[in-house]
Amino acid sequence: MIKAGIVGATGYAGAELVRLLTSHPEAEISAISSVSFEGQKLSDVYPSYTFLNDMVCEDQDAVVEKSDVIFAALPHGLSQELAEKCISAGKAFIDLGADFRLESEEEYTEWYGGTFLDKKLHEQAVYGLPEFFRDKIKGKKLIANPGCYTTCSPLAIAPAIANGLVSTKGIICDCKSGVTGAGRKPTQGNHFPELNEGFHAYKVACHRHTPEIEQTLSKLSGEDVTITFVPHLLPVNRGILATVYADINEGVTFEQIRKAYEDFYKDEFFVRLLDDGKCADIHNVRYSNFCDVSIHHDKRANKLVACAAIDNMVKGAAGQAIQNMNIIFGLDEKTGLVIVPPAF
Amino acid sequence: MIKAGIVGATGYAGAELVRLLTSHPEAEISAISSVSFEGQKLSDVYPSYTFLNDMVCEDQDAVVEKSDVIFAALPHGLSQELAEKCISAGKAFIDLGADFRLESEEEYTEWYGGTFLDKKLHEQAVYGLPEFFRDKIKGKKLIANPGCYTTCSPLAIAPAIANGLVSTKGIICDCKSGVTGAGRKPTQGNHFPELNEGFHAYKVACHRHTPEIEQTLSKLSGEDVTITFVPHLLPVNRGILATVYADINEGVTFEQIRKAYEDFYKDEFFVRLLDDGKCADIHNVRYSNFCDVSIHHDKRANKLVACAAIDNMVKGAAGQAIQNMNIIFGLDEKTGLVIVPPAF
Amino acid sequence: MIKAGIVGATGYAGAELVRLLTSHPEAEISAISSVSFEGQKLSDVYPSYTFLNDMVCEDQDAVVEKSDVIFAALPHGLSQELAEKCISAGKAFIDLGADFRLESEEEYTEWYGGTFLDKKLHEQAVYGLPEFFRDKIKGKKLIANPGCYTTCSPLAIAPAIANGLVSTKGIICDCKSGVTGAGRKPTQGNHFPELNEGFHAYKVACHRHTPEIEQTLSKLSGEDVTITFVPHLLPVNRGILATVYADINEGVTFEQIRKAYEDFYKDEFFVRLLDDGKCADIHNVRYSNFCDVSIHHDKRANKLVACAAIDNMVKGAAGQAIQNMNIIFGLDEKTGLVIVPPAF
Amino acid sequence: MIKAGIVGATGYAGAELVRLLTSHPEAEISAISSVSFEGQKLSDVYPSYTFLNDMVCEDQDAVVEKSDVIFAALPHGLSQELAEKCISAGKAFIDLGADFRLESEEEYTEWYGGTFLDKKLHEQAVYGLPEFFRDKIKGKKLIANPGCYTTCSPLAIAPAIANGLVSTKGIICDCKSGVTGAGRKPTQGNHFPELNEGFHAYKVACHRHTPEIEQTLSKLSGEDVTITFVPHLLPVNRGILATVYADINEGVTFEQIRKAYEDFYKDEFFVRLLDDGKCADIHNVRYSNFCDVSIHHDKRANKLVACAAIDNMVKGAAGQAIQNMNIIFGLDEKTGLVIVPPAF
Repeated sequence: MIKAGIVGATGYAGAELVRLLTSHPEAEISAISSVSFEGQKLSDVYPSYTFLNDMVCEDQDAVVEKSDVIFAALPHGLSQELAEKCISAGKAFIDLGADFRLESEEEYTEWYGGTFLDKKLHEQAVYGLPEFFRDKIKGKKLIANPGCYTTCSPLAIAPAIANGLVSTKGIICDCKSGVTGAGRKPTQGNHFPELNEGFHAYKVACHRHTPEIEQTLSKLSGEDVTITFVPHLLPVNRGILATVYADINEGVTFEQIRKAYEDFYKDEFFVRLLDDGKCADIHNVRYSNFCDVSIHHDKRANKLVACAAIDNMVKGAAGQAIQNMNIIFGLDEKTGLVIVPPAF
Repeated sequence: MIKAGIVGATGYAGAELVRLLTSHPEAEISAISSVSFEGQKLSDVYPSYTFLNDMVCEDQDAVVEKSDVIFAALPHGLSQELAEKCISAGKAFIDLGADFRLESEEEYTEWYGGTFLDKKLHEQAVYGLPEFFRDKIKGKKLIANPGCYTTCSPLAIAPAIANGLVSTKGIICDCKSGVTGAGRKPTQGNHFPELNEGFHAYKVACHRHTPEIEQTLSKLSGEDVTITFVPHLLPVNRGILATVYADINEGVTFEQIRKAYEDFYKDEFFVRLLDDGKCADIHNVRYSNFCDVSIHHDKRANKLVACAAIDNMVKGAAGQAIQNMNIIFGLDEKTGLVIVPPAF
Repeated sequence: MIKAGIVGATGYAGAELVRLLTSHPEAEISAISSVSFEGQKLSDVYPSYTFLNDMVCEDQDAVVEKSDVIFAALPHGLSQELAEKCISAGKAFIDLGADFRLESEEEYTEWYGGTFLDKKLHEQAVYGLPEFFRDKIKGKKLIANPGCYTTCSPLAIAPAIANGLVSTKGIICDCKSGVTGAGRKPTQGNHFPELNEGFHAYKVACHRHTPEIEQTLSKLSGEDVTITFVPHLLPVNRGILATVYADINEGVTFEQIRKAYEDFYKDEFFVRLLDDGKCADIHNVRYSNFCDVSIHHDKRANKLVACAAIDNMVKGAAGQAIQNMNIIFGLDEKTGLVIVPPAF
Repeated sequence: MIKAGIVGATGYAGAELVRLLTSHPEAEISAISSVSFEGQKLSDVYPSYTFLNDMVCEDQDAVVEKSDVIFAALPHGLSQELAEKCISAGKAFIDLGADFRLESEEEYTEWYGGTFLDKKLHEQAVYGLPEFFRDKIKGKKLIANPGCYTTCSPLAIAPAIANGLVSTKGIICDCKSGVTGAGRKPTQGNHFPELNEGFHAYKVACHRHTPEIEQTLSKLSGEDVTITFVPHLLPVNRGILATVYADINEGVTFEQIRKAYEDFYKDEFFVRLLDDGKCADIHNVRYSNFCDVSIHHDKRANKLVACAAIDNMVKGAAGQAIQNMNIIFGLDEKTGLVIVPPAF
């Protein structure tokens, strides 16, 4: 059994890791930590876990010591030091935060305001979006687990981008996320009466996930891609829908695009390419690691409209982190993640 | 008092007309009709109206006879004959359906499958989006009341389009609507457990509101505008948010765009242009005739991102219809429509 | 015009007073205050009010000075001193908090922990539930506006209690409230993802509204009534449903009970007694001052089951406060409160 | 592997059986049937199941033939004949409908309007609420799987009833259910805009689950129990909360009651008795087979208030049916049902 520790277990991503790891057949939770709830039981914070996980939150050192792999679900800036400690101790480290996602320190500084503590450490990090970078993940110990928008948006458009079927200029990612994406801390904007029956954009064209999406699309296309990214807040608990718009290149038919999607995803268990005429819906992927993708042709403007739906807490966070753990420990990638999304 | 009759009073748009007209100080509901509920009380269909409107649904002829103005909230194709009857009888006719919205019969046939019964009648019709076409509405008797998406999307982008500040090519309208937009008839897709906690696009790039939005933008710009329009279904009762993307023309600054919006809407009571940094939210316009507009600059891609929020049943249907009635009867446009949107 | 001031305008009850008073034809808002937002515009706190109420929050003294009637929406314990100031200055004072609701200081101390600052002041206070105590309200200047549960529960059962048709022993009030009842301050329990799709009881048999309901029922029955009161939290914005259970007295028929309800409420505009077979629904009273009441006979156990639905922020707070203002200023009680509840 | 067949697989209970059985380690779905969707893939009806269960709906005979155990999720009245067929063929039969739940034919006729086709068959049936009747279930082939309200309400009060600590007279079950309880067929009442933001009682004191709850409580107490049962409809997908009120017998302390609950449920994996001061919440049992129970003392009226929360589709339907299957096939009762309820 893999001994898996969770640092930041009482945040939403940490709590979701607990939920998923509890039924993982090849891993067991070795220890959990939380700054805010040290010494308290996780099930006091999340009563739904009562009797299923009544572990007490310890400190970070205890987690590192007791674990083969450490998942960190921390605010950005707090993972680098911990990563160093884990890697030095020969442990695997999977970071659900943003510290290791951007390869360019300049971009990191621009968007997050910090610097790379140890450049060599960053060179060891691999971006853990298995559908694109599986081969690079194998054998690694330091994984930068992608964010939620940054998983969903590229999965929507990757086959078209990677095959040069759409223009890399002018791509628009209009994304809509459930509330858990904003975390556990209550705020006025997430207070039930003010969010319920509402819907709005936020951080328009200035959200930190922008350079991360661009980095992935640039790798896939081999060109420098600049996108327009606009996130919106949905009054639902879970799920992200990315609606991505791209200009179809001259001479390219929609049939070629569909074929490219079919080929690109044919062996990807977690990506479900929907039939023509169907639309990806966050309802159908809740609580699971699936990403549903639907593609649509705007014939009048000759654009590709691609929709991708994920559960932001699973494929957009904890599920993908476990998928990465499976890969680096040589397990079948699906282990512990074959979950039927509920129909209602 | 204006005698106002409603044909199709038991559909959602009709019911909303009843709600709003009940507190209109210069109009009274003279008669209502419904094919499905003829002979029954409206308050049996909508118990929230008990004691406030217990009128019995009559037939269409009774409504025409008893009214100075007839509002028709019917499925498309059913208004043309009724309009003819009303206009012949010297009544005003405000059509909340699609029969008179498109000026081109060819487009109407392409998107709706019918023909214009009487071309002369269509020539008398005016498209009732007061913020753009107020002067043409005055003195008219036959109003084509715009649809919900087709009110919201142009209001988001009009000042930029009308002043030639953005390209008329490649405009994208990514819209999200509450469920009332789909009407009163229960369907599997709108069944509570299958819609709640879900979100998806539908009729991608093939929704009937596409040519109507294009017609309005073409008039505003003086050019033939083709857009990409993708509607989505939100798990809320009311509201539409349109997120509209357009390329800023070379040499145009965002300050110029803001100035154009301020000038364009400075005398428009029902359009609230939000300060920089704020985002239009459907939560803030519910149950009211307001349209909140926020504009945002994607500096990296030099695009304008404009958001507009309306209540789809008010500014997107019944409220705007009353606004049109006010204009054609020479009342202050705001009469009966100064409603404070609830804060929660 | 009555000059109406609001102390505590940025809390939910205060904000709802603003919404309702804005369309009151005989009153105008003279000044508002808020400790947390002094110097800021109300519409910055509640953007839905933009352009409709952009008043700046002042201090309490300014409100008292500028107003004929002062509405106080403050946490308990903070109204007594303010009331004294207002009454001394000859102003009317309507307290939406709990300070003047209980006539017994002993009970107040037991449930709220404070004392009566000025017993004479308390003697001047009248409990403002107009359907029961209208005659006592007329001509008064100091009104204790009832709480939400304490309006809804007695309205459900009053006619049976007042006519001695049910036992005063063993009455159970199983109540369910929307989230606005818990106020504007974000908490973990009201954080969207943890409340949405949830439902639970709270403060079981120990909620502070218990003695207030008992006080009203005791007055109506002439006996000392002890009840069991269990509130629950509904994942909706607005509304309270009280389901009240009482044993029917021997020899009393259900027809007698229905007759008693009809007589009791026949002149009450804001109480809508539903026909047999219908059930009161919070959906049908939202945003309005109505209380829908339905009564049901459990023949097998010979119990009366009475349901009452109100909007907790209107009939349960701000609307009833305005109803009281109308009475004490000699206006028609309905003035400014004839609002059609939306059908959806 | 147990071959499990599902008749009525496209209804909500049937679909939930599919979800749960898919991850059952000792059972596999052998065949499914549906009258409405015969010949179609289940994943066309429930797209969330795509690639996980793409089985085609067959007819009932195929299901019977291919299965060791047949789960029937049919409207009442349709199971008796099928049960006969299965039992004759030596198969196990678990009925999620009401046909075999009531032991008294007279009561069945009174509440459901039909008769017992074959009294001997009814004598073989055992009521499958394992926490109470586990020993009778073992070795049986014909299980009447309890309804949702009828699982939740008795679990709330059983320890007090079974130990004679509360009066069997005057028990009140005030229950609140999520919308899936009403099934998959869209109705006006469950149409999103009319249910969302609403809450009401229905079938007050005349719901068919009444005699079933009474039958269970009568068995537990050894007395004839008559209850008052009032169900309400919650605007959530899943979950039932039962709030049960009972008079504490003279001389009984609340400590004795708590002790009785602890003893009664100490070996029940699926019942989680919460600590004093906590309240059962449907949020914490969603998608799982758990029943959370909290007990509260109304000292002033000396009543026990007991709350129980279940997922109506799992412990209230499909999960409990699988629990019964596990028992009759000699498996550990928890097999396939150790599911961590999500925290959000």
